[in-house]
Amino acid sequence: MKGRPIKISALLAFLVVRLLASPALASDPLPSWNDGTAKQSITAFVERVTREDSPDFVPAPERIAVFDNDGCLWAEQPIYFQASFIFDRIKALAPQHPEWQTQEPFAFVLKGDVKAALAGGEKALLEMAMATHAGMTTDEFERIVRHWLATAKHPTTGRHYTAMVYQPMLELLACLRANGFKTFIVSGGGIEFMRVFAERVYGVPPEQVIGSSIQTKYEVRDGQPVIVRLPELHFIDDKEGKPVGIQQHIGRRPLMAFGNSDGDFQMLEWTTAGKGPRFGLLVHHDDAVREWAYDRESHIGRLERGLDEGPRRGWTIVSMKGHWKSVFPSPTR
Amino acid sequence: MKGRPIKISALLAFLVVRLLASPALASDPLPSWNDGTAKQSITAFVERVTREDSPDFVPAPERIAVFDNDGCLWAEQPIYFQASFIFDRIKALAPQHPEWQTQEPFAFVLKGDVKAALAGGEKALLEMAMATHAGMTTDEFERIVRHWLATAKHPTTGRHYTAMVYQPMLELLACLRANGFKTFIVSGGGIEFMRVFAERVYGVPPEQVIGSSIQTKYEVRDGQPVIVRLPELHFIDDKEGKPVGIQQHIGRRPLMAFGNSDGDFQMLEWTTAGKGPRFGLLVHHDDAVREWAYDRESHIGRLERGLDEGPRRGWTIVSMKGHWKSVFPSPTR
Repeated sequence: MKGRPIKISALLAFLVVRLLASPALASDPLPSWNDGTAKQSITAFVERVTREDSPDFVPAPERIAVFDNDGCLWAEQPIYFQASFIFDRIKALAPQHPEWQTQEPFAFVLKGDVKAALAGGEKALLEMAMATHAGMTTDEFERIVRHWLATAKHPTTGRHYTAMVYQPMLELLACLRANGFKTFIVSGGGIEFMRVFAERVYGVPPEQVIGSSIQTKYEVRDGQPVIVRLPELHFIDDKEGKPVGIQQHIGRRPLMAFGNSDGDFQMLEWTTAGKGPRFGLLVHHDDAVREWAYDRESHIGRLERGLDEGPRRGWTIVSMKGHWKSVFPSPTR
Repeated sequence: MKGRPIKISALLAFLVVRLLASPALASDPLPSWNDGTAKQSITAFVERVTREDSPDFVPAPERIAVFDNDGCLWAEQPIYFQASFIFDRIKALAPQHPEWQTQEPFAFVLKGDVKAALAGGEKALLEMAMATHAGMTTDEFERIVRHWLATAKHPTTGRHYTAMVYQPMLELLACLRANGFKTFIVSGGGIEFMRVFAERVYGVPPEQVIGSSIQTKYEVRDGQPVIVRLPELHFIDDKEGKPVGIQQHIGRRPLMAFGNSDGDFQMLEWTTAGKGPRFGLLVHHDDAVREWAYDRESHIGRLERGLDEGPRRGWTIVSMKGHWKSVFPSPTR
């Protein structure tokens, strides 16, 4: 139990941090970013809001940074990774659902025709999502996702999905936290899906993950309380939903927002319309060699309005090709 | 910008904290708690999960503590404080609503007959809540609540509502945070209502406040994005809703849960059913002299099942009369 002494120790810790953080000793916190406009816009903003003698200094509790996940922290091609999870689960559950052999869209998945399964649009995707994400407890769902992440491999790289995260963004997350920021994920992906790996992979604890969700229900089964996942939508955390989700979960306007698609437009708009210094950044997928190149015409992660309006709104556009020294963590790490 | 040096400084800070936290130097972090079973159950549990050589040691990120608000962190008599806010707002808005002069339940409020207004039950309360909590932006609502808190006075004590918080619980919140816990509010009260004062009064930032909510909508008005509050229920954070709200917002089962009524039963049940060491506590309002005395028969903060089942579930029952040296902060503070 610690009482008052924490204050004295906090003061000492602060002095130690100041001493060690002097430029001569500090190493580059963003080594995978090429020196240039993008990196500089980030470091200049962070210095502007964290230096105590800065006129734009922001107290630590207000240093909130929000990150999209798909296409911003990890890759999203050739299909959203959570869609791969859905298809793998349909195959795994097929023995318990003989009716799926003839029932679309499930029958397409079982025949290996992902394209046809996705052609059914939102309605088909929702049906497949509910069949694979609901009907179990939250604890059971966590175990299912954990097992999938440990075993499933990306179709073109053969790597685990959690290895297909962007090294420059991992550095950025750590750098912001070292500067007193609280980092949140704000994604259209499933909130409970992302929570399974967000802490281990991104250093983002479950309470700082915001995403789409289904309804849940509290129940006591044989004396043991459980939370059961129901096949009904609760919240879609995309587009106009992102500022709404941010307000619901955080209750404070972020200082910095990071995205990559027009699904992030409103999140950046809401963030950068706040009073005082604000920062918006979009990752532009223009690196067909090391990752994928897609923007205006893409069905996944379409980026059009952000490219057109972002620069004149003062948002930083990151070229993966030009601004990043590396994309994925090296496999040996 | 700080890079690697933070790690070294964290180590030094840790050593400093250990040194200063030695029993000989630490003062009592819970001075308003009488020495006895309740206080001892808290301090023993905190030591059990935070001492690194304890077999029940819990890493800091998993140290989640959840607190009910009404009747647990601040008083709730003679009516919930947020109900007083509703009635005051109806009076303030009456000139813009001439129809309220004859329309129940509003007419009762304008005649000063709170009892009759509340006799309409949940339906009437919901109607009055929507008329006073919706129709404005989130920023506007925050300003309205802030102004009300700064001016409104409690009907029997004449103190500001934010002065009617429990001193022993303020000390408990601070003590848990000093021991690496993240403290959350999980209350049936309105999430945006509580966020206005939770950080200043309790040291709980907005992102750690969970409560009941209404629907909201993102809009761009004359180029300025706003979030508009709509007159539709979104979530009731009470009874079975509390574990659901905890899972939605925190995504991790708490280690400790604090409440005072049967509305907190499921929150304590969910918390204490977790694996490993868990802690549940109910504040029993049995002090008619310094606060109020009510439990099984009360319409507000009814506590019956908790008193019957709590002790055999291992939950601590706090007697305000017997376990607390003081109830409210002294007025001079």
